[in-house]
Amino acid sequence: MTSSGEPAVLSGETAQPAAAGVGAGNGAGGGIAQDLIELDHGTGGGMSRELISELIAPRLGSVHHGRMEDSAVLGIETARIAITTDSFVIDPIFFGGGDIGKLAVCGTVNDLAVSGAVPRFLTLALVLEEGFPIVDLARVLDSVREAAEQAEVSIVAGDTKVVRDGEIDKIFINTAGVGELAPEVELGMARVSEGDAVIVTSYLGNHSIHILSLREGLGFEERIASDCAPLAGLVQAMLDEHPDHVHCIRDITRGGFGTVLNEVADDVGVSIQIAKDRLPIQHETAMAADMLGVDPLYLANEGCLCLFVDGDAAPEILEAVRSHPYGSAAEIVGAVHGRAESPVKMQNGDGTDSVVEVLYGAELPRLC
Amino acid sequence: MTSSGEPAVLSGETAQPAAAGVGAGNGAGGGIAQDLIELDHGTGGGMSRELISELIAPRLGSVHHGRMEDSAVLGIETARIAITTDSFVIDPIFFGGGDIGKLAVCGTVNDLAVSGAVPRFLTLALVLEEGFPIVDLARVLDSVREAAEQAEVSIVAGDTKVVRDGEIDKIFINTAGVGELAPEVELGMARVSEGDAVIVTSYLGNHSIHILSLREGLGFEERIASDCAPLAGLVQAMLDEHPDHVHCIRDITRGGFGTVLNEVADDVGVSIQIAKDRLPIQHETAMAADMLGVDPLYLANEGCLCLFVDGDAAPEILEAVRSHPYGSAAEIVGAVHGRAESPVKMQNGDGTDSVVEVLYGAELPRLC
Repeated sequence: MTSSGEPAVLSGETAQPAAAGVGAGNGAGGGIAQDLIELDHGTGGGMSRELISELIAPRLGSVHHGRMEDSAVLGIETARIAITTDSFVIDPIFFGGGDIGKLAVCGTVNDLAVSGAVPRFLTLALVLEEGFPIVDLARVLDSVREAAEQAEVSIVAGDTKVVRDGEIDKIFINTAGVGELAPEVELGMARVSEGDAVIVTSYLGNHSIHILSLREGLGFEERIASDCAPLAGLVQAMLDEHPDHVHCIRDITRGGFGTVLNEVADDVGVSIQIAKDRLPIQHETAMAADMLGVDPLYLANEGCLCLFVDGDAAPEILEAVRSHPYGSAAEIVGAVHGRAESPVKMQNGDGTDSVVEVLYGAELPRLC
Repeated sequence: MTSSGEPAVLSGETAQPAAAGVGAGNGAGGGIAQDLIELDHGTGGGMSRELISELIAPRLGSVHHGRMEDSAVLGIETARIAITTDSFVIDPIFFGGGDIGKLAVCGTVNDLAVSGAVPRFLTLALVLEEGFPIVDLARVLDSVREAAEQAEVSIVAGDTKVVRDGEIDKIFINTAGVGELAPEVELGMARVSEGDAVIVTSYLGNHSIHILSLREGLGFEERIASDCAPLAGLVQAMLDEHPDHVHCIRDITRGGFGTVLNEVADDVGVSIQIAKDRLPIQHETAMAADMLGVDPLYLANEGCLCLFVDGDAAPEILEAVRSHPYGSAAEIVGAVHGRAESPVKMQNGDGTDSVVEVLYGAELPRLC
């Protein structure tokens, strides 16, 4: 709506841990009177203000700077910034390894991180369905706070809309992010070339398999959690140690590894060969994918990167990645070659190759 | 998803005007084959990519920088930035004076403008319902482009999600914005004080009345258009001419003028008196509000500001505002006084005063 000038941390209200006390008058010590979101929480009057000041701002705690619904004024220390946005419409909203709140922070932080930027500021826009339980909103906000703390980003501006029962499914979240880029950082597809090695930083497909299994009640959700994680620390550690040898980083999300490889090969005008037996895929993930009729190459992750790095430096970079908690399963899985008839090929390990196609749409699992 | 390094304008594809030819194979000269949005447009594969490269990017034309779905790397010329976000869930999505696309640009541009920032970059996140007509999407994107051109902002990052039929109402848009702030600009409630004059820059309530009348088919929608407009030019013109005398600017949106006044009086610890007969309200708006049982003081605008300015400089600032196309109906409507029992009072013109209350929720018209 408007600006209050300099951002001010909303003071005095320490975030409470998500506990059973939330809801039913929203726990002891103030909070809001309702148990469910009402349309009037979105009309911009006293109830809107109360929702923000009594629930949203306190739950976000120290990661919240500025006034929600306002434009925040912030200092910036570099002459280059990275900007990104992502909407999160996942179903179910709570899952093993995270929820829509954690996802909304990690997804946008990771989009910034792969550009080489240090994520600094996030906006948080909530669209809530009338009747959404306040206790669930509190839980999502706690996850936003925890993920933002871990990623060291501040939530600087927000917006809350309420739509009629049935107009959305529970809650949608949009986050946009701004990061600071050091002058010397230049990552991008333009730097990918023949001789680069391809590294995958984590197990492929775990986020998709967890969500799909949870929806279908297949039982794999107990064994395979979502890999949802903020990866800016991993990226910055790599860039610190290997400033010149990391050429391009892609976040493996919707579309999966197969789509990333095809996009890069197509845009750069090269071909990429990967080896099937080098791909980090967990046994349960492969089993579940088989049962669901999906290919792990096209499954989404939320905490897995694809790196294009200098071929000679690749073993050293692999070690650096593996020393980070979110990179322990990393593998060198392929290499970049000159332009070829099939942009992306996979060696199957039995002497045969197969083409990793661009999937058009219908064959890809839908997570939202 | 990831960054391609420096932003690159998608080249060569000039935006077409919204014409009957869109849809049905999306008009001549390429485009996408479908007439309706399908779930597969959101899975991150070839169909997603095609939607972006064949429809979204070309329609955005020259205002589109960077790769949609990516984090864009951008140069910034100041050490202070303003950041904001807003989700747009309006029903109906097309209306007189604009549509959800224009609104999504103007709303966020105005949030930046009132902080004193020069709006520079927007993100554009679309959530589309399966079955949404491509021709409508093209029309919305054309409005985004036109509004962004007028506001001189670039769309630098985007995201497109598709949800099942019935999971949202047609289309939701989130925009986040980044603006540059000159070092000397300091606007905010902290600068509001006794003796300030209150200026309203346009007719109150027209956006709400248009939308409510359109929904109910009352006929006023023919005579009262939405005032949706980008106001950064108006704000910068004022700041150029009166750098020290403009103290605080608020965008009169959800909650209306009455809510803005109460928020400022409450936060600053002052009282505000307005004169009913000075309020710029069009006759038809007053009639429609009466018929709908709503008070124009609490109706939303999308192109109207509330200014708190130095009392002595107010007449001169009023002239400056009126000389701008979006400020021609501006009026000095009140003044800031010391703390009083009722934070906001209105002189009714018949010797009586009434209190302008904080409305809690239910009494406020719901636009989304």
